[in-house]
Amino acid sequence: MKSHERSLRIEWGDCDPAGIVYYPRYFEMFDTGTTHLIEAAAGLSKRDLLAQRGLLGWPMVDTRASFSRPLRFGDDVRLESRFVELGRSSFKIVHRIMKGDELAVEGWETRVLVREEGGRLGATPIPDDLAAKFRTP
Amino acid sequence: MKSHERSLRIEWGDCDPAGIVYYPRYFEMFDTGTTHLIEAAAGLSKRDLLAQRGLLGWPMVDTRASFSRPLRFGDDVRLESRFVELGRSSFKIVHRIMKGDELAVEGWETRVLVREEGGRLGATPIPDDLAAKFRTP
Amino acid sequence: MKSHERSLRIEWGDCDPAGIVYYPRYFEMFDTGTTHLIEAAAGLSKRDLLAQRGLLGWPMVDTRASFSRPLRFGDDVRLESRFVELGRSSFKIVHRIMKGDELAVEGWETRVLVREEGGRLGATPIPDDLAAKFRTP
Amino acid sequence: MKSHERSLRIEWGDCDPAGIVYYPRYFEMFDTGTTHLIEAAAGLSKRDLLAQRGLLGWPMVDTRASFSRPLRFGDDVRLESRFVELGRSSFKIVHRIMKGDELAVEGWETRVLVREEGGRLGATPIPDDLAAKFRTP
Repeated sequence: MKSHERSLRIEWGDCDPAGIVYYPRYFEMFDTGTTHLIEAAAGLSKRDLLAQRGLLGWPMVDTRASFSRPLRFGDDVRLESRFVELGRSSFKIVHRIMKGDELAVEGWETRVLVREEGGRLGATPIPDDLAAKFRTP
Repeated sequence: MKSHERSLRIEWGDCDPAGIVYYPRYFEMFDTGTTHLIEAAAGLSKRDLLAQRGLLGWPMVDTRASFSRPLRFGDDVRLESRFVELGRSSFKIVHRIMKGDELAVEGWETRVLVREEGGRLGATPIPDDLAAKFRTP
Repeated sequence: MKSHERSLRIEWGDCDPAGIVYYPRYFEMFDTGTTHLIEAAAGLSKRDLLAQRGLLGWPMVDTRASFSRPLRFGDDVRLESRFVELGRSSFKIVHRIMKGDELAVEGWETRVLVREEGGRLGATPIPDDLAAKFRTP
Repeated sequence: MKSHERSLRIEWGDCDPAGIVYYPRYFEMFDTGTTHLIEAAAGLSKRDLLAQRGLLGWPMVDTRASFSRPLRFGDDVRLESRFVELGRSSFKIVHRIMKGDELAVEGWETRVLVREEGGRLGATPIPDDLAAKFRTP
């Protein structure tokens, strides 16, 4: 399955009065990780991919995160994101934020591909060519 | 176990280009829900509670959320938060965001009470009187 | 000119490692203040107002804020928002965040009403009836 | 005066239901730009700089931004930040966000260096060696 890695810097504005990352920010990092993973797989920007396929996005269905080690502002970390499962319209991704060799946060998510259907979000099958790209390491 | 309810308004800035809540925002709502739940139980503001007990906070250990129905800006919703389990230093809370009678999002979280220990966060037991208040409906 | 007031609570997640509000959050408070001010003037939710008038929104053209006194998590404050000038398509609003009798932050903003024009945002005149409501104290 | 430049990507979560950047996010970009500018000048991370000099931070005193062109998710932009004025304890920085050759947003800010003084934030003079580094292009 396709994976993607990027470097991140924990910024001042990511942190709370205890001096550690305000945890909703991790989900923003994961969300951006998913965008970059899909873009790397598809070879297209999210914007172009949505436009070309007539998609609205890939909203979250279920997500979980487990926090092993607090991160502080100024920390340089690595976000690893990879596909772990593909369904008909849904897909699962795992994210790991590493500080050096240590795991700081791990996230799991299930999303579904949607298009607009009569003013609402409707699940739509992952096109075969895209699924093939998600599967290719 | 203690529970707490508050009204929320989904604001423009909570929503993404698909017009629905950008999901990391739900975790901000849950975090605020936990603050208000603990404050309601303790009968003290978070600020006073941290100061009086020498605590740094109650960082997240593990959290999950499940999304049943997208919310849009302008939606008026209800956030229900309640304790579901107390450990020695940790506690579990469940959050539900309801739009009318419909469940939109459900969240589960495990947090741990911490104080500063030599420049680091160290788990600390939940004081008995506080635990009793968390248990009282 | 129309004005509007609301109570706000400075939350944990609004604050940075120095323990004070992370200043971009003030602009989120102002943005929400503008929404509530316009809704109070129009007697309609932002969502309905945009839909009924075929508008995309009222993006910011220019904004400034001046910070007199830092706010900390747990502070209960009052946000006062009022129209101060109406142009053909643009309008100016002033926001003040008060802690008790003390001014903490003051913000000024110029926005413009826009609709979609060929896939772009185009300025559009403020309808007369809406302008009248913005002018009414 | 010292200047610094970095590349930014407008992410999905930076944008609102109109599909353009939710403007408080520009202030987060500016804040991070200031951090990177000061770090580049000082040759130290913000964390180390605060620790070594006994500082709490450089909170905002006054800021303004002017928006010329909306940015959309997926836009690749350049943030240019530079010192424009140094006072005894305060300093001014200008930020420009460029999309190719076009100016999208310009920001001005005045900050003040603070340390803790009896549980409060107190302005403190910019050390001479640091001021010299802020002045060096």
